[in-house]
Amino acid sequence: MGKINVVAGIDIGGTNSVFGLVDANGNCITQGQVPTEPAQGPDTLFIKIFNAIDNLINDNDSELELIGVGVGAPNANYYNGTIENPVNLGWGIVNVVKMIYEHYNLPGAITNDANAAALGEMEFGVAKGMKNFIEITLGTGLGSGIIVNGDLVYGQDGFAGELGHITVKQGGRICGCGRFGCLESYVSATGLKRTALTLMAKMTINSSLRLIAPRALTSKNVFEAAMLGDELAKECFKYTATFLGRALADTVAIFSPEAFVFTGGMAKAGDILFEPTKSVMEESMLQVFNNKVKLLPSGLNAGDAAILGSAALIWHEKHGKV
Amino acid sequence: MGKINVVAGIDIGGTNSVFGLVDANGNCITQGQVPTEPAQGPDTLFIKIFNAIDNLINDNDSELELIGVGVGAPNANYYNGTIENPVNLGWGIVNVVKMIYEHYNLPGAITNDANAAALGEMEFGVAKGMKNFIEITLGTGLGSGIIVNGDLVYGQDGFAGELGHITVKQGGRICGCGRFGCLESYVSATGLKRTALTLMAKMTINSSLRLIAPRALTSKNVFEAAMLGDELAKECFKYTATFLGRALADTVAIFSPEAFVFTGGMAKAGDILFEPTKSVMEESMLQVFNNKVKLLPSGLNAGDAAILGSAALIWHEKHGKV
Repeated sequence: MGKINVVAGIDIGGTNSVFGLVDANGNCITQGQVPTEPAQGPDTLFIKIFNAIDNLINDNDSELELIGVGVGAPNANYYNGTIENPVNLGWGIVNVVKMIYEHYNLPGAITNDANAAALGEMEFGVAKGMKNFIEITLGTGLGSGIIVNGDLVYGQDGFAGELGHITVKQGGRICGCGRFGCLESYVSATGLKRTALTLMAKMTINSSLRLIAPRALTSKNVFEAAMLGDELAKECFKYTATFLGRALADTVAIFSPEAFVFTGGMAKAGDILFEPTKSVMEESMLQVFNNKVKLLPSGLNAGDAAILGSAALIWHEKHGKV
Repeated sequence: MGKINVVAGIDIGGTNSVFGLVDANGNCITQGQVPTEPAQGPDTLFIKIFNAIDNLINDNDSELELIGVGVGAPNANYYNGTIENPVNLGWGIVNVVKMIYEHYNLPGAITNDANAAALGEMEFGVAKGMKNFIEITLGTGLGSGIIVNGDLVYGQDGFAGELGHITVKQGGRICGCGRFGCLESYVSATGLKRTALTLMAKMTINSSLRLIAPRALTSKNVFEAAMLGDELAKECFKYTATFLGRALADTVAIFSPEAFVFTGGMAKAGDILFEPTKSVMEESMLQVFNNKVKLLPSGLNAGDAAILGSAALIWHEKHGKV
């Protein structure tokens, strides 16, 4: 009996790193995770992951043939095959693709999590068959992976696709990048919390959010309050949708994409965020694009999504060559 | 002796249409022009142009072998091969690629002038060898042609690349598209004239521009006054540069391009526009992109540029296949 070709997908997180073996159809056959423990250095982490992957393959009575390894990581540079100075991990420059080649003698590839998510969506998810779409990850920040003509937009240096850092308000909120008024300072879990404070200051209506100390306040608090009918919490989502909808309208003028695909914790907010976003986007865009662009939730199982995205880095290259 | 392969490049303008025969190296061997006379309809115009091209070929003792026809035109749709409802020509939908095929039995292609300019620059101009750059045409409006991974960004419907219609000021100037605050309402020849009025209202300093009736005022007046040291006119360019520089910084975050290439009448303003634009762009952008992105003037001879761009539509496909 022939072996099943699989790609190992690895996602490096701040706390835990997950990995799994993914076949050509996007089935995650088996998976595992290890603590990232960044202080112990990247070599220790990757050896731990490679050994765990070797065990996964052996556990399957060698029915699986590993053909490549894809990695999603913060500050990843696709062109160089490296992770470069990730602030939250405290590393310097780590040549991941070289480590993969030395361990496996197989092709490796690395990109950031938003780009990996976009490829996962195109190969296995809701963007299957699309040539032009934009993946947006709504978590602590706002990441994006942009697909044009069926391939990722990396730009001259591998760092393209930073929709989270377009300026949506001159002199607006300070952003983690040190600049002011970036989209992600308004549209993200962190942005939603800041919006709650903005609106508590601006409005006088009562709200359960006024009972929570700002440092303890979470985006989940805002969501749950909105679901219970809290007017101020509902306004927070409308405010967020105004910034997101306008930014999407501008992005449509540039790319004319088939869809925006949303993933990440805050994307779970669903209609309360995306209905007003859609309205603002349609009102704000050039007429020629009206009613052409879909807003879609990710088509990938949240538990596998990061692994599928990383594995898609390799499967996209294989499929592209068929 | 072997014949020289040439592509016919045609540029449809509101008043005149120009055409020429372009070899693989971007030499415009011969060219001509006819009045567009839009009221007589597209069939009349294209027959007139095709006949003139036939004459150009015959004039060269049949040493030239025509291998395709590329067209630049307003409201062109590359995917459909059509011009679609161009307001300034008063036509409906015109299937140009079909007309080319019926007359010549050769491949044809059509796109808008900014996209054609981008291809011309990549094949024959200052962007030779670049895989990621953005062409910006500064004329009455602001057009753009975006190259990603060596190909134009057309999006799902052929209408991508409308950088002129990203919103740079909420509730700002009304734009020709009916929306408010579009980049081209600030950054274009028309935008510069409007800025002169804005600053005449805002400032009290004397200026030669105050002697010209607003309807008679041209962007050339503003440029010439600035060159003579008129402070208000110089401020007009700084004001323009602020909007342009910020928009470029956002565009860099999205595309990480190697360069922006500027063409069109207002691009001739040179340093007085592009020095402050570069400063604002560098100050406004994410640090990771600082000092990586060039602002370049077009590398094509202004007299041939439109013809070379249109011809590049076909040469790009031929070269891409080599």
